[in-house]
Amino acid sequence: MAFSVEQIRGALSDGLLSFPVTDFDANGKFNAETYKERLEAFIKHGVSSIFIAGGTGEFFSLDEEDFREIVEVSVATVKGRVPVIAAAGRSVKDASKFSNIAAEAGCDGILLMPPFLTECPEDGIVEYASQVMASADIQFVYYNRGNGILSAESVKELAARNPNMVGLKDGVGNIAALNDTIKTVGDRLVYIGGVPTAEIFAEAYLSIGVNTYSSAAYNFMPEMAMNFYKALRAGDKATTTKIIQDFFIPFCRLRDTKKGYAVSLIKAGVALQGMPAGDVRAPLTMPNEADLAALKAIIESNQ
Amino acid sequence: MAFSVEQIRGALSDGLLSFPVTDFDANGKFNAETYKERLEAFIKHGVSSIFIAGGTGEFFSLDEEDFREIVEVSVATVKGRVPVIAAAGRSVKDASKFSNIAAEAGCDGILLMPPFLTECPEDGIVEYASQVMASADIQFVYYNRGNGILSAESVKELAARNPNMVGLKDGVGNIAALNDTIKTVGDRLVYIGGVPTAEIFAEAYLSIGVNTYSSAAYNFMPEMAMNFYKALRAGDKATTTKIIQDFFIPFCRLRDTKKGYAVSLIKAGVALQGMPAGDVRAPLTMPNEADLAALKAIIESNQ
Amino acid sequence: MAFSVEQIRGALSDGLLSFPVTDFDANGKFNAETYKERLEAFIKHGVSSIFIAGGTGEFFSLDEEDFREIVEVSVATVKGRVPVIAAAGRSVKDASKFSNIAAEAGCDGILLMPPFLTECPEDGIVEYASQVMASADIQFVYYNRGNGILSAESVKELAARNPNMVGLKDGVGNIAALNDTIKTVGDRLVYIGGVPTAEIFAEAYLSIGVNTYSSAAYNFMPEMAMNFYKALRAGDKATTTKIIQDFFIPFCRLRDTKKGYAVSLIKAGVALQGMPAGDVRAPLTMPNEADLAALKAIIESNQ
Amino acid sequence: MAFSVEQIRGALSDGLLSFPVTDFDANGKFNAETYKERLEAFIKHGVSSIFIAGGTGEFFSLDEEDFREIVEVSVATVKGRVPVIAAAGRSVKDASKFSNIAAEAGCDGILLMPPFLTECPEDGIVEYASQVMASADIQFVYYNRGNGILSAESVKELAARNPNMVGLKDGVGNIAALNDTIKTVGDRLVYIGGVPTAEIFAEAYLSIGVNTYSSAAYNFMPEMAMNFYKALRAGDKATTTKIIQDFFIPFCRLRDTKKGYAVSLIKAGVALQGMPAGDVRAPLTMPNEADLAALKAIIESNQ
Repeated sequence: MAFSVEQIRGALSDGLLSFPVTDFDANGKFNAETYKERLEAFIKHGVSSIFIAGGTGEFFSLDEEDFREIVEVSVATVKGRVPVIAAAGRSVKDASKFSNIAAEAGCDGILLMPPFLTECPEDGIVEYASQVMASADIQFVYYNRGNGILSAESVKELAARNPNMVGLKDGVGNIAALNDTIKTVGDRLVYIGGVPTAEIFAEAYLSIGVNTYSSAAYNFMPEMAMNFYKALRAGDKATTTKIIQDFFIPFCRLRDTKKGYAVSLIKAGVALQGMPAGDVRAPLTMPNEADLAALKAIIESNQ
Repeated sequence: MAFSVEQIRGALSDGLLSFPVTDFDANGKFNAETYKERLEAFIKHGVSSIFIAGGTGEFFSLDEEDFREIVEVSVATVKGRVPVIAAAGRSVKDASKFSNIAAEAGCDGILLMPPFLTECPEDGIVEYASQVMASADIQFVYYNRGNGILSAESVKELAARNPNMVGLKDGVGNIAALNDTIKTVGDRLVYIGGVPTAEIFAEAYLSIGVNTYSSAAYNFMPEMAMNFYKALRAGDKATTTKIIQDFFIPFCRLRDTKKGYAVSLIKAGVALQGMPAGDVRAPLTMPNEADLAALKAIIESNQ
Repeated sequence: MAFSVEQIRGALSDGLLSFPVTDFDANGKFNAETYKERLEAFIKHGVSSIFIAGGTGEFFSLDEEDFREIVEVSVATVKGRVPVIAAAGRSVKDASKFSNIAAEAGCDGILLMPPFLTECPEDGIVEYASQVMASADIQFVYYNRGNGILSAESVKELAARNPNMVGLKDGVGNIAALNDTIKTVGDRLVYIGGVPTAEIFAEAYLSIGVNTYSSAAYNFMPEMAMNFYKALRAGDKATTTKIIQDFFIPFCRLRDTKKGYAVSLIKAGVALQGMPAGDVRAPLTMPNEADLAALKAIIESNQ
Repeated sequence: MAFSVEQIRGALSDGLLSFPVTDFDANGKFNAETYKERLEAFIKHGVSSIFIAGGTGEFFSLDEEDFREIVEVSVATVKGRVPVIAAAGRSVKDASKFSNIAAEAGCDGILLMPPFLTECPEDGIVEYASQVMASADIQFVYYNRGNGILSAESVKELAARNPNMVGLKDGVGNIAALNDTIKTVGDRLVYIGGVPTAEIFAEAYLSIGVNTYSSAAYNFMPEMAMNFYKALRAGDKATTTKIIQDFFIPFCRLRDTKKGYAVSLIKAGVALQGMPAGDVRAPLTMPNEADLAALKAIIESNQ
């Protein structure tokens, strides 16, 4: 851990958040060499923190061995230049184990995903997250998503019970519910936008106090993604509108043609841009030829 | 029709839109006398237009006879002070008939609801709406809602085919899709926020170019609703936040406890405020004692 | 009304139920002449009752004038050979009016659809349906569907309050909920299967006491549809399996490619079989050339 | 592995399938002693196979250490009297590891759950399941559920690619889709009913060729659950109807009052019956006092 809580909080609430894809080699194994280069490139473009092994990083397909290697390589590469946040989730036991692996490796925070598969009552989710947060000496962001969605009062309780809960990441995109949560819980937490391709939601997020979001597109369009973020924060509507029209609308429409493309297209994009990260692992699938061509055309008309 | 297209467009794009409840007497019949008083009160508080017989006005429970009386009384009462927009929908034939009744009575526009019950393909919805719009000499706002939801390209086509389509009202609350639509179709249309209790969405709407919305709460909290709208447009975050915290969050949570309460609580509210409009018609139900008491407490702490 | 309650009950609980499409002419108006021929053909093949102006008959696109003509022509054509059931719905006032038009024309029952558009609490739906059932001297089947879905205890209450409620038609296909309803309410009601293309559900329906269902395919494949029904009731698994494999599986897969095809393909089918009924009204759309060819191939390999 | 493929297939297609809860001690750790007694009791009542560490066994909250102990204890306790099937899932790597742990411990099969969290395209799910099935020398049942739902043609492809796929367990309850799958894939696979509290679905399952199902209620009502199964297979409608009315309807209604109760109420039930298994792990929650009393009343009126 290279940063104070206040520094982490600051990094998470102001500046673009980046979520690198996870590099695999031709045999589908984690490729530390190309991953290090990817992290270096990320930092160069000015992100405020790096979320490793997250959704865009195919967390759901990583095992303990993969995870350990990724967090160790990341901490060693980033060397305290920006906070490093790793994901955890699935069950109290597994999330606790992963959180401790990350903490011991020197990560600065955990992005806590929901439990695996089962339907969950809200009080059970609060208990799940609290047990995990109590198990490790590290800051936590809870990812409100999938089967683990908390409403405002539950978020409030979770924050009250866990001093090391620093933030909430929204993966739902329900503005009414999120507005209730933010105006109920207030600045006890930092709020992060986290729906897929969050730029399409960024203006609405900002309007209710979500100053930043996770940019997956930053993986293969770093300058454009950074320009968009800066224009957003500066209130430069002409620029944000143009980038949404030219890039994010065609990209999101392509993304919606097949499940899993929110991640698969990112891996396809980095390859098209000359920094291949290998193929996604099953159950994701790489885009077919026609979709690759469509992605290529979108990229080319935005460079 | 008392207004030019540009005046209607202006009224729909700047200023609070009001949706009066429909007054019924003790026998459940339309009560023109109390409805006239309601419309007078609405205008006094400064709304930019009045949408009659809409969702809050229980359009779904009105028949042709009710509708004809409502539009005639409304036009005669409002007397051209603000535009009067009436609802229509259900089928091409019924919506065309209602649109012509409203046009002949002197209304300024139609809020076109989706078809009844059936699932609809997007091209079929475009055809449904186009046939209705072609049938009457009046301006139309299409209400994107229920089984009649159009995506961006379909909205664009609908607007291109129908010169008398002036606006799109959103009843979905899907920010990504609405952002796509607005940035694709642009200022050819006026955009209106129309999810239930739209104030909880108002900041996000505004951030993507939806300058106004339908306020149901205006029925029983007109000053607060107007203050909220003015603060929103003035960028007075402290005021909008406080009103959302004090009124809209508890109100929305009460609303979510029973289906149909988005309308039923409005009718209960006007009665609590001394301007009763009778009971809602089935399939809606009036709130029970406990919910009435909760509503009363919310009102009292916001006056 | 040509039948006693017991006769209607008997017809609805044993024998195939038929739902003719509604004939429109080249101008989109109701075509009484071809509709009469269609009804004659229906009766010849041995259905136990005829549901006119129902979902397959595009009830959602018919106005009062259409409806009146359809019920009058139907009663005059069927002449008491089998019960004639007409649809109603949308609001208490409209459903009551349509129910009385049908009763006065001599129909034997009403299939009551849910209210238009609005979300409804269960007690409000019970009230809606009860007010309609009290308004007309005719037997009612409630169609559990869309925004008007009742759970077991609500169905029980609706039946207890309305002696002229004779049946429940399922349009949901939730076996657990329907099983609860049937085993809770028992033989006070007749149960009818009513999901789209109900034959794909027919074995499961029968297993929990739903002896019959609405066959839309009967419109253009009457012999096959009747053979299927007889095989089902006779426990002839080889025949039902073969017809599902050869016809209903490819048909349902084609149906699922576009919203509204559950009805549109039926109108396309009757035209392919030489008994055209005109085009569907918007918001439905006729199949394109490729889908028509696919439908034609399915028909030809099953004749 | 104590059984041939044909014996496993036979056990899975005829006879009641049992899913024991997983015993935890006061510290939340796996309790092998009471678990052994539970397995003995299960076998005594005549089940045809035992599915360990499945959904009712809180698979989603077990880690590798728990899992290894459970499979080893189970194989050692059951001693080849009936097939032992263990769950696996979450990712290709984790599911492959768990499958091999189970195979090496002597289990007879794997119930393969879907991937963790991510949305998945169907071809990606087929690839996920195929990679897992290829990784271990053991028979597999695929559990069609959650984010991993396959339609008929994908099930057919999965079965064609993997000779050691013996069955499909349905966790969706969509009769139309399941009927399509069964009539398309045929007896290449064994079909198992697997919606929560599957008895409420059992008649419908049987009607389309699903001869058996997973009984969670068997955990605390073994005689009743076995009587129900025997009556179902014997066509004794009076008995199945009575048990559904007296037990499963009130139980399912209680279950539906809180998320996760499909499992939590089973653990509460075994404690009420004198064979406590400890509390569920978070994110599940034990029933509150009122719900416990309701469960107790349901049990008592059915013994």
